[in-house]
Amino acid sequence: MTTSTAPIAIGIDLGGTNLKIAAVDREGRLLASVVDPNTCGAGPDSTIKAMVRGADRVREKCGGESSQVVGVGVGTPGPIDVRRGVVLHASNLPGWKNVAIRDELAARFDLPVAFDNDANLAAYGEHWVGAGRGGGDLVMLTLGTGVGGGVIVDGRILHGHFDNAGELGHMIVEPKGLPCSCGQRGCLEQYASAAGVARRAMAALEAGSPSSLEEPLRQPRGIDAGDVAAHATRGDELAMRIWNEACFYLALVVVNVRHAFNPERIVLGGGMSDAGDFLITRVCDQAGKLGWSLCDDAPQIVRAALGNEAGVIGAARLAWSRVDVTERHQH
Amino acid sequence: MTTSTAPIAIGIDLGGTNLKIAAVDREGRLLASVVDPNTCGAGPDSTIKAMVRGADRVREKCGGESSQVVGVGVGTPGPIDVRRGVVLHASNLPGWKNVAIRDELAARFDLPVAFDNDANLAAYGEHWVGAGRGGGDLVMLTLGTGVGGGVIVDGRILHGHFDNAGELGHMIVEPKGLPCSCGQRGCLEQYASAAGVARRAMAALEAGSPSSLEEPLRQPRGIDAGDVAAHATRGDELAMRIWNEACFYLALVVVNVRHAFNPERIVLGGGMSDAGDFLITRVCDQAGKLGWSLCDDAPQIVRAALGNEAGVIGAARLAWSRVDVTERHQH
Repeated sequence: MTTSTAPIAIGIDLGGTNLKIAAVDREGRLLASVVDPNTCGAGPDSTIKAMVRGADRVREKCGGESSQVVGVGVGTPGPIDVRRGVVLHASNLPGWKNVAIRDELAARFDLPVAFDNDANLAAYGEHWVGAGRGGGDLVMLTLGTGVGGGVIVDGRILHGHFDNAGELGHMIVEPKGLPCSCGQRGCLEQYASAAGVARRAMAALEAGSPSSLEEPLRQPRGIDAGDVAAHATRGDELAMRIWNEACFYLALVVVNVRHAFNPERIVLGGGMSDAGDFLITRVCDQAGKLGWSLCDDAPQIVRAALGNEAGVIGAARLAWSRVDVTERHQH
Repeated sequence: MTTSTAPIAIGIDLGGTNLKIAAVDREGRLLASVVDPNTCGAGPDSTIKAMVRGADRVREKCGGESSQVVGVGVGTPGPIDVRRGVVLHASNLPGWKNVAIRDELAARFDLPVAFDNDANLAAYGEHWVGAGRGGGDLVMLTLGTGVGGGVIVDGRILHGHFDNAGELGHMIVEPKGLPCSCGQRGCLEQYASAAGVARRAMAALEAGSPSSLEEPLRQPRGIDAGDVAAHATRGDELAMRIWNEACFYLALVVVNVRHAFNPERIVLGGGMSDAGDFLITRVCDQAGKLGWSLCDDAPQIVRAALGNEAGVIGAARLAWSRVDVTERHQH
């Protein structure tokens, strides 16, 4: 337990399976956190109550009443309306449709509340004190259940006109490719999300391709992307083919993101990035082979540094950034 | 001839075949312009002299000595270094390698000179007084010899870390597609630039496909994208196939641009846009068929409004924007 009386911001990251809440100081140090795995699925009301309880708990850990909380930042899956502070709908969260989360939380906390998309906030956290620390423009891809994207330009989150900028998991990489739940075909997340890689491996096994992955498939927990990476490193052909295809399509998006945003760094996070260099090096190599030769503007491709905490740290940064703006206006 | 003593900015747009220079007032009205078709190809020195001569000529048209010129904006093909004001190299302009155009012009004009990429400035011009007037974030694709791209976010040109953001003509739309001079395969500009469409039609004719395009092919000027559009409207199968493929790949980039930047409008300009609705409607339809259904964030797809003058008007806006910043700092 950390105790501190230095000012803190509360960061909240609502995911499909976990609710994370953390206290973060002005330098981006995570002082205390709680994870609540049980609150999602029961609808917005009970989740919002769990957010308030969780914030109280991290506040206790940081000195209780004596702690000075400057504000709250919260991230949820999208699509969202940033300006109005509303979750339009979150397909992984039952009952989350047109939830005015910012105002709900502001009323309960009696504190300023800032709100954004979870993938944007992961990028914002990595840019602050993670893999993008000290750097310029950054694009982050979170390779998990889906593929989330976040774009940081001149130190700020890019939102676009409809607040859905950086939806990079739904960039089409294969015009006549696999169908996606979004209605399109050939989206990046069908090939390069952790869940997509596992699905493709299972489909290939079901189609009868021989593979050492048959063994983990027989276990109750089934196959995940980590199994595919592990069996690929051990030389299994099917696992290697699927892993290489994931890296190829990631490289294609790296190249298209390079031409679109021209960032200094592209950060890869989420479950796929647990494979470390087996992912990063392959994506770099494949991106190089795609052959752009007109100028030397290759972004650094790096692994995320903050793991599962990028979201809460980014949410807390958002709360801090509002404090900074207010202070600037007062001076 | 227009005479005026209201303040003007000089916009300069250097293209592969023409040098355009215009006087533009604070509201974006083009008051006078000259086009010099003969100065490119002789190297940077003689082109820079022609820029100065051309600026004198438009100034004469606007009242000569009595005209008040607030600054100069200049656009060239890329890659460029915006911060240093240098053309790194322009493949269509012989001898243009590491040319410090901003400082060269500033010394000769004794005026503040602002500098950017020609495609960025076309987008900036359309956003000011053209198809993007009064609107929010905008992405422009100029479908000419190549495909140029420009991205306007919060009223400003997006540059990225290496100043090459918005190189949308080199987004890869077909992973194993046609080779491009940039070193990649399957770039948008191979399929949807005016020159690319003409090249693909000629290749199909040479391969023996029957088509009414054989007739214009026998003319000295050969086939251009306008012929392909015209013969497609008259029901020629080959022309229709190539035109539809161009529209399909444009639609794919429209969708990927929507997910990346989430702009309010996407503006299509350049030679291909002369086909009007035969281009715009088809691209809209194809983009709709790609099926995104998670939220209603479709950008308006519109035809450019400023024609060949978008570049000089955008260049003049850049000059004006520097004046505005200076004035804000003084108050």
